[in-house]
Amino acid sequence: MTIGEIQFRVRYSECDPMGVVHHATYPIWLEMGRTELLRATGTTYREMEVAGHFLVVAKLELRYRRPARYDDVLTLRTHVLEVGAVKILHEYEIRRGTEIILVATSTLGCVDREGRACPMPATLRDAIATTEGMAPGA
Amino acid sequence: MTIGEIQFRVRYSECDPMGVVHHATYPIWLEMGRTELLRATGTTYREMEVAGHFLVVAKLELRYRRPARYDDVLTLRTHVLEVGAVKILHEYEIRRGTEIILVATSTLGCVDREGRACPMPATLRDAIATTEGMAPGA
Amino acid sequence: MTIGEIQFRVRYSECDPMGVVHHATYPIWLEMGRTELLRATGTTYREMEVAGHFLVVAKLELRYRRPARYDDVLTLRTHVLEVGAVKILHEYEIRRGTEIILVATSTLGCVDREGRACPMPATLRDAIATTEGMAPGA
Amino acid sequence: MTIGEIQFRVRYSECDPMGVVHHATYPIWLEMGRTELLRATGTTYREMEVAGHFLVVAKLELRYRRPARYDDVLTLRTHVLEVGAVKILHEYEIRRGTEIILVATSTLGCVDREGRACPMPATLRDAIATTEGMAPGA
Repeated sequence: MTIGEIQFRVRYSECDPMGVVHHATYPIWLEMGRTELLRATGTTYREMEVAGHFLVVAKLELRYRRPARYDDVLTLRTHVLEVGAVKILHEYEIRRGTEIILVATSTLGCVDREGRACPMPATLRDAIATTEGMAPGA
Repeated sequence: MTIGEIQFRVRYSECDPMGVVHHATYPIWLEMGRTELLRATGTTYREMEVAGHFLVVAKLELRYRRPARYDDVLTLRTHVLEVGAVKILHEYEIRRGTEIILVATSTLGCVDREGRACPMPATLRDAIATTEGMAPGA
Repeated sequence: MTIGEIQFRVRYSECDPMGVVHHATYPIWLEMGRTELLRATGTTYREMEVAGHFLVVAKLELRYRRPARYDDVLTLRTHVLEVGAVKILHEYEIRRGTEIILVATSTLGCVDREGRACPMPATLRDAIATTEGMAPGA
Repeated sequence: MTIGEIQFRVRYSECDPMGVVHHATYPIWLEMGRTELLRATGTTYREMEVAGHFLVVAKLELRYRRPARYDDVLTLRTHVLEVGAVKILHEYEIRRGTEIILVATSTLGCVDREGRACPMPATLRDAIATTEGMAPGA
């Protein structure tokens, strides 16, 4: 399962005095996309944390194409580009109908309870690799 | 030390499409007021948590008097009304100059790492009681 | 239509270092409950704003019963208690299954573009009154 | 005035269940950095908006180096790299003492009330260019 889509409605509190979604809101939505994509692989991020594996954002690149507004229904497509030994690369696209609102990429690392880099759980790597025939990278 | 004041500037992201501070922003500021008031007693909330004491909000009442806007400089006055065995009552007032923006009260409880009610740390109760001659309540 | 329910999942960013939902998150959810309840009457808050009517929170009382956690699915029940000439009273309950997480009440006022108190739009008052046979109050 | 520094303390609500600052908090701080840098040029973003000029984020790149924690005092250095006819490039660095927490860059565009691209106000371009002898670019 390397691609997933979620739909959600823009909250009033997510918008700013320009009447549009504040740019700091988008990373929160991208995280929701990752949460739901992980659930679709048969595990959950909550279970990963209980098992002592934490995903931390190392890099985030956001390109804001068009403003979104309060009460808009948006679609977020989350795509796992590559899953390595200790890193995952995601690509994102947020649309309102056919209009592209935002595109983004992120790099996440896996850390243990003490915040030290650690290997991705095998179940996660396998689930991602198997479902779509994607070869786990380095 | 039962009364303290802090000043802060309204962030753009804290305002909504009406061009005013979103009402969910205020509890965040009240928490800052408690953090600084605690620091003034000679301890910090970070140290309390390390020692295994956590303060959780049980009740919050907010009365919004006037809108605040982006870039306003606001003053928050935080007042400990009563410190009991397991609870603290605070009263708050946010002003812009002499104009009252918000008044509020809160009840916080003390819990341990497992979330069970536990007695306030003695150092906290003493610091509050001593500084202002305020008798710790029940 | 004076009662409505929505379900939503707790976001990671809505939780704090105690591992529970931060108390300032709840007012955001209550606002979502009002948005959806209004939509169920046949109008939307977005349309109200376009028509020059804005609802502002005058008073908010929150009682936190139990902590909620990341990835919990919560149910919010929003209830219009009374709709007056210029004010609306709401009552809220957030549950996780049968467990009560939070109860709250709010008072909202209607204002125009300049922020002056103004009468509730008749369509809103009628929709609320008619659907449930509730007499609009003062 | 092309470089400025601000200091601020991490709020409890800005941290997540890992006990560190949530990654979506950083863009909010970068915006504070821009607000204060603009103030140092002799104008304010609030005045720019009143005059009908709005700055919107077109691109944002964040590299998270180390976690920050509740109650940390952080220093944000904001640097205008280039000011063009319709765009501004900024570079940022957030430190805790000498430790680098985050580095970032952003591209902002200037738009009018209707959201159409428009030239940067001359006063803004001049203030930036004059203060540091920086030649406004294209």
